[in-house]
Amino acid sequence: MPRVFNFSPGPAMLPAAVIEKVQAELSDWKKCGMSVMEISHRSPAFLNIVEQSKAMLRKLLNIPDNYCILFLHGGASMQCSAIPLNLSSPKKNADYIITGQWGLKAYNEAKRFSKTRIISNTMEQFSTPNTSELAFNDDAAYLHYTDNETILGVEFSHVPEIDNAPLVVDSSSNILSRPIDVEKYGVIYACCQKNIGIAGLAISIVREDLLGHHQAHTPSLLEWQHLHEKNSLPNTMPTFAWYVLLCCLQWIEQSGGVVQMQKNSIQKAKLLYEYIDNSDFYSNPVAPQYRSKMNVPFTLQKTDLDALFLQQSTQAGLTNLKGHVSVGGMRASIYNSMPEEGVHKLIEFMHTFSRQHK
Amino acid sequence: MPRVFNFSPGPAMLPAAVIEKVQAELSDWKKCGMSVMEISHRSPAFLNIVEQSKAMLRKLLNIPDNYCILFLHGGASMQCSAIPLNLSSPKKNADYIITGQWGLKAYNEAKRFSKTRIISNTMEQFSTPNTSELAFNDDAAYLHYTDNETILGVEFSHVPEIDNAPLVVDSSSNILSRPIDVEKYGVIYACCQKNIGIAGLAISIVREDLLGHHQAHTPSLLEWQHLHEKNSLPNTMPTFAWYVLLCCLQWIEQSGGVVQMQKNSIQKAKLLYEYIDNSDFYSNPVAPQYRSKMNVPFTLQKTDLDALFLQQSTQAGLTNLKGHVSVGGMRASIYNSMPEEGVHKLIEFMHTFSRQHK
Repeated sequence: MPRVFNFSPGPAMLPAAVIEKVQAELSDWKKCGMSVMEISHRSPAFLNIVEQSKAMLRKLLNIPDNYCILFLHGGASMQCSAIPLNLSSPKKNADYIITGQWGLKAYNEAKRFSKTRIISNTMEQFSTPNTSELAFNDDAAYLHYTDNETILGVEFSHVPEIDNAPLVVDSSSNILSRPIDVEKYGVIYACCQKNIGIAGLAISIVREDLLGHHQAHTPSLLEWQHLHEKNSLPNTMPTFAWYVLLCCLQWIEQSGGVVQMQKNSIQKAKLLYEYIDNSDFYSNPVAPQYRSKMNVPFTLQKTDLDALFLQQSTQAGLTNLKGHVSVGGMRASIYNSMPEEGVHKLIEFMHTFSRQHK
Repeated sequence: MPRVFNFSPGPAMLPAAVIEKVQAELSDWKKCGMSVMEISHRSPAFLNIVEQSKAMLRKLLNIPDNYCILFLHGGASMQCSAIPLNLSSPKKNADYIITGQWGLKAYNEAKRFSKTRIISNTMEQFSTPNTSELAFNDDAAYLHYTDNETILGVEFSHVPEIDNAPLVVDSSSNILSRPIDVEKYGVIYACCQKNIGIAGLAISIVREDLLGHHQAHTPSLLEWQHLHEKNSLPNTMPTFAWYVLLCCLQWIEQSGGVVQMQKNSIQKAKLLYEYIDNSDFYSNPVAPQYRSKMNVPFTLQKTDLDALFLQQSTQAGLTNLKGHVSVGGMRASIYNSMPEEGVHKLIEFMHTFSRQHK
C-alpha cells in the first residue's frame, strides 16, 4: 500500500528516509554479516552508536558539559518514578505544575516516593499558567512540569522561571522540535517514540550535581548515578531502538537541526490552526497562546459525523486521527517526521468533507 | 557480506527466516502503509500481536490458566528489582541459590528491598547444588535460582523441589529451549534477546495468587498486579521488540515447538562437548552433569593463541566467540537460532586450528 500520513500521537510516523535506511541495512548491517538487531551491546560497533547518539544530542540541543545524557528503559513513564526516587525523599516536597493528563500521571506516581504538592492545575482551562504569578516553595525538592500535553494539545510557550529548586521537564512530545535553553533545567526527559524514534527507549539530560541523591530503595536501573557510571549500559539496553534513535538524530541534523524543525513546526501548526479557526465546521478548544505545535485536537460541530470522518480520512491515507476520549473528536499529531505535505492533504480532506456535509 | 554464525551470548543470533520476514515487511506492514515501528500500541493491529504472542507462549510452554503472562520493560535485570518488590518486604527473607554471576547479581539487587539469604553458592565449583540435600527455610518469601548461567556455562538438569515457598527462576538464557513444568514455579522470568527475540523486552509468567503483594514504594511499571490489570500495556511498550518476539515464537512453533528445540539443543551441545572432550588442545571447565546446553565455554591449552583463534574464527564467519574474562578463553552460545550447521563449522574450524598449532 502507498505510504500513509500517520497522525498518531505515538508511536508515531518516522521519516521515510529513516525507514528506507533501516530496511535496506537490516539483514547485513555495515557489511558485518549480521543484523543490527543481533549485535552485542558490548561490541565496538554498538558502543559507536552510543557515542555518536550522545555527541549528536549534545550538538543538536547545545547541551553543556555539566549535564550528562542518560539512555533509559521504560519510556517516560518509568522516569515518573525515577524523578522522585532520585531527587526527593518521603519527607521532602516535590512540586508539580499540571496542565494535562501526563502531568497528572507524573504527580500521582510521585506520591509513592515523596511528599507532593500541586502548584497549579489548569487542565480544565486548556491552558498553561502564568508562572511569574505562581508562588513557588522554598523547600521544594524540584518543580516538575510537562512542556507539551499531547491529549489536550496545550504547550508552554515559555520556561517557568524558578530559582529555588531544580526545574524538571517532561519533553516527551516536543523534544528536538525546537531549540531549548538546557541551562534553565535540572532535568529534561523524554521518550523517543514521538519526535526521535521508536518505543522502548527514553533519554534524560541531567545536571550532574543532581546525581547521587537517590533513595535507598531505588531499583538499580532507575538510579541515575549508577546509569551515569555505567555509560547507560548497566544491562542489555534496547539496542535496536537506540540505533533507530541515532538514525533519527542524523536525519534531524541533515534536515537543518532543531532550528529548521522549529520553522517546520511553526509552519505546519499555522496552516492547520488557521484553517480550523476560519472554519465553522471544525473547532479547537485551546486559546491561541497555549496551543501545541505538536498535537492539534479539533472537533466537528456535527459530532455524529465523527465516525464517517475517521473512516473516510483513513481511506484517503490520513490515519490515526481519532482524538482522545477526554477531548473527543479528532487529533492531528504533527511531530518532526510529518511532512508539510501531510498537513496540506489533511486540510484538503477536511475542506472537502466539510463541503459535503454542510 | 554472507551471513555469519554469531555465537554471541546476547543480543544473539536470530533465525534467518525471522530477519527475512522483518526486513521484507518493514516499510509496509500488513499492507497498512506504515512500518510496524510506527503503529500505535493501542491499535487493533498491535493488540493482535499482544494476544497472539500470549496465546503462542501459553501453547508452546503449556502454561496453565492460573498463571498470567506479563511483558515487561527493562530486561531480566529490572525483574531482579521487581521480584523482591512484589514478593518480599524489608522484614521478610528472600532466599537465593547462586550458581553464577547472574544469580549473584539478582541476590545483590534484592538486598535493596528485602532481607536476603544465600542457601547455596557453587560458583567456584562450576556446578549446581544437589537441591535435595539443601536446608530450605520455612520463613522464606521465595527461593530464587538461575536455570542457566551464561558465563560459567552451568545449567540445572532438574527443578529444585521446594514446598514451603514460591520457586522463582531466571530462565533468560534457556527459555523455550526445552519443555518446562510451569506448575513447579511461582514465577518464571526471562529476557528475550537470547532465545526468543531482541533486547528491550522481558517476559514473566506469574502464578496469579502471587499478584497484589507488592511493597508500597514499588514503581508502577514494576508492579505485577498493575501490569496484569493493564494487559501489560501500562504505557507505551517496546512495540517493535514485541513484534519480533511474536515472529520468533511463530518460528519456534513452525520448527516443531520446544520439544524439537530441545532435541536440537541436545544434539548441538553433544557435538561440541564431545569434540572438546576428545581434544587435548581445548578443554571445558564444567563436569558433564552440570553443563549448559546453551553456552559452551572452552579454553585453549596454549592461551597465547587466544587472540589468533578469535581473529581467524571471525575471518571464517564464526563471530563473538570471546569468553567472559572470569573464565577466559572462548564461549560458544548456541541458542535456539543457531543452526546445527554453525556448530559443525565451528568444530571444523577448531579442528583445523588445532592441527596448525600442535
